[in-house]
Amino acid sequence: MNQWQKRSRPIRLERRFEFETYSETRDFLDRLGEHTEAAKRFPDISFGRTYVNITLRPEDEEEEVELNDDDYKFAAEIDGLLN
Amino acid sequence: MNQWQKRSRPIRLERRFEFETYSETRDFLDRLGEHTEAAKRFPDISFGRTYVNITLRPEDEEEEVELNDDDYKFAAEIDGLLN
Repeated sequence: MNQWQKRSRPIRLERRFEFETYSETRDFLDRLGEHTEAAKRFPDISFGRTYVNITLRPEDEEEEVELNDDDYKFAAEIDGLLN
Repeated sequence: MNQWQKRSRPIRLERRFEFETYSETRDFLDRLGEHTEAAKRFPDISFGRTYVNITLRPEDEEEEVELNDDDYKFAAEIDGLLN
């Protein structure tokens, strides 16, 4: 089940992840940090004690560009960090 | 110089930190994580490749409560993490 929401103006994918504890949140953030560094791609991330919101814009930064397969693949890779 | 902005509805302090590189951003986030864990206080944090926004609400979660000395002290401690 894909829980990323596609939104417009600007075009982006967003997903909210919720956790039981700060420790789980921090573990996820650490894995996320390693993954974004490896991918050299830096989404906007918001977090508090038990949540993480990720906003992923098209890799291609031209205006009006659509999300492409690489964007969805990157989103799926982030989902994989939950396991 | 204190660059925290006090805002209302809800009452909060906000500050944006900007960095030259992702590496500096990540270093600051790591120190911030350690500090919030030690203080057991978890502000809302947003970040991207070269910025970190922090939103600090009154520690006392009652409605309409004002920011107190502890809140400003915690903000100043976050500033100290820059060094």
